Amino acid sequence: MNDTFLKACRGEEVPYTPIWIMRQAGRYLKEYREVRGKSNFLTMCKTPELAAEVTLQPIDILNVDAAILFSDILIPCEAMGQGLDFHEGKGPILSPAIRDEETVNKLYVPDPEDKMKFVPDAVRLLRKELADRVPLIGFAGAPFTTATYMIEGGTSKNFLNTKRMIYECPELYKKLMDKITATITEYLKAQISAGAQAVQIFDTWGGIFCPSDFRENALTYVQSIIGDLKKAMASGSIEEVPIIYFVGESAGLLEEIKTSGADVHGVDWRINLDDAISRLGENAVVQGNLDPLSMFLPQEKIEIRVQDVLSRAKSAGGHIFNLGHGVVPETPRDNVIALVEMVHKHSRR
Amino acid sequence: MNDTFLKACRGEEVPYTPIWIMRQAGRYLKEYREVRGKSNFLTMCKTPELAAEVTLQPIDILNVDAAILFSDILIPCEAMGQGLDFHEGKGPILSPAIRDEETVNKLYVPDPEDKMKFVPDAVRLLRKELADRVPLIGFAGAPFTTATYMIEGGTSKNFLNTKRMIYECPELYKKLMDKITATITEYLKAQISAGAQAVQIFDTWGGIFCPSDFRENALTYVQSIIGDLKKAMASGSIEEVPIIYFVGESAGLLEEIKTSGADVHGVDWRINLDDAISRLGENAVVQGNLDPLSMFLPQEKIEIRVQDVLSRAKSAGGHIFNLGHGVVPETPRDNVIALVEMVHKHSRR
Repeated sequence: MNDTFLKACRGEEVPYTPIWIMRQAGRYLKEYREVRGKSNFLTMCKTPELAAEVTLQPIDILNVDAAILFSDILIPCEAMGQGLDFHEGKGPILSPAIRDEETVNKLYVPDPEDKMKFVPDAVRLLRKELADRVPLIGFAGAPFTTATYMIEGGTSKNFLNTKRMIYECPELYKKLMDKITATITEYLKAQISAGAQAVQIFDTWGGIFCPSDFRENALTYVQSIIGDLKKAMASGSIEEVPIIYFVGESAGLLEEIKTSGADVHGVDWRINLDDAISRLGENAVVQGNLDPLSMFLPQEKIEIRVQDVLSRAKSAGGHIFNLGHGVVPETPRDNVIALVEMVHKHSRR
Repeated sequence: MNDTFLKACRGEEVPYTPIWIMRQAGRYLKEYREVRGKSNFLTMCKTPELAAEVTLQPIDILNVDAAILFSDILIPCEAMGQGLDFHEGKGPILSPAIRDEETVNKLYVPDPEDKMKFVPDAVRLLRKELADRVPLIGFAGAPFTTATYMIEGGTSKNFLNTKRMIYECPELYKKLMDKITATITEYLKAQISAGAQAVQIFDTWGGIFCPSDFRENALTYVQSIIGDLKKAMASGSIEEVPIIYFVGESAGLLEEIKTSGADVHGVDWRINLDDAISRLGENAVVQGNLDPLSMFLPQEKIEIRVQDVLSRAKSAGGHIFNLGHGVVPETPRDNVIALVEMVHKHSRR
């Protein structure tokens, strides 16, 4: 197996810097658009064969060093009892928006092998189909980021309803977060039990907080999940796999984030990677951090940026190359293919 | 005159920490909504008497230490020849979107005393009406932030069109930015000539860049404006007034931002203020940085945060208290009044 990704996560020596790309199974690939053209997004998430098919596409096309399960961070919201729908061009709609005691009380903590069985099923299918070519990454939204969608009822500009619940009804927020945290913990355990060889926790919106609010309202719940997973790993009830924690817009929060307990910290492009490493602590294992939109640069300029990121990563305890956020649909496919080649070429020891 | 704000900008001793609030003339005030109910937003911007009326409201109601001219950062776009309209709930619409040689070529650098005369007129009227009670701040959008609206045709989620122009057509972007920079420079000079006693340059979207892109595509144009203003001040052609540079989501960019040439740097809430100060350089003069949505906290919790920010500001060369971004329309008015009182009380030497 190509285990450079797993080795880098553990801070071990690797022959070159491994790379995978957030949202690598996505609309910038015509092969993905073909599958998507025949189905809708949620059906793809819920059909293990379709999810597996698009998960595998970038492995052949891009030559990346890890596969990441095709799914959506909002799957657990539906399993908890909230309505979930995706409208073309409008993003997700969750209903009813969770804003009071009554709607919070109606949510339950689902058994992932029941209500979300299609996800561990897709993991099992993928492990068979990947046949150990590259490791498979599972994932979930972090409790806070998941909560923003549940409270706002979809995407948001300034997260007014979420912050109002936090500031005006902190007990209600905690009650909601405890349910989400229990759900995500079981969900990740189920993915690992099904064969996920690493998991990433996405806290895309964590960066909307000041450091103390981030710690109290987002990080503490992630620490709880990671603590539970590590305990289950230590007891042998699940396999020992690396845990990656990604926080968007995290430049001011890194001193908090470094206490997450994760093995790897994902960093977006808004800070130089060497600066992020020194704030996370020398020898931190990091993942990142090219601006996804820099994929529109001419390839010779992308190459300069690749070398810059690789060189800034030298003080890290380990480095997995990635974009700082998901690749966007309009991205020129050839530039992504070239990116993977460049990372492999310029990092080879 | 209450000159604590101007003194703090210059790093001089003050009896207490001055405070003003971004978007202090806004919809959270019923007095503002009354004026707004009889007029539309753009008409208010273009009618000096109305702009002056709402500018003055928070001075009495809040007891803040500075007035900031009521206007909009997109006024110069219209003066440059682009169509500007505000649709209720949808934000600004600029048309046509500036994305090619032809649309860039059609833009001109307007004489602010001609095409935007209502702005310096409002400044002159306000100086009379304020009668030196508190200083009057003028402002403009930074060239990059202004450009995002002109290129996207309005607000944006990921600034795809803006970054594509920067990455795919850098010469075209530079041509556009040179025109915007010349416009903003003249616009700020006109405001200072009309009597603005400080100016703030808003780079609300500067934080979407990695540090090197920020320097090349945003900061360099701000440095040019500040350099020109400082030269005009040194030669006596305009009054010597403090220049404040505010960048949103700037935690990863502060080492770049500190070279802006501005007298004061505005910091948002996503980083602890003491951390920001040490990154900007000890003795930096800073403005900020409470999360605007923390105004929904109970007042006793707001008070704890006020004391925290004041205490973190102690290493600064000067501190002007502010929110980290504009106050939102839903904000409880009484909490904003209480905020000003708390800042004055807890900072009194």
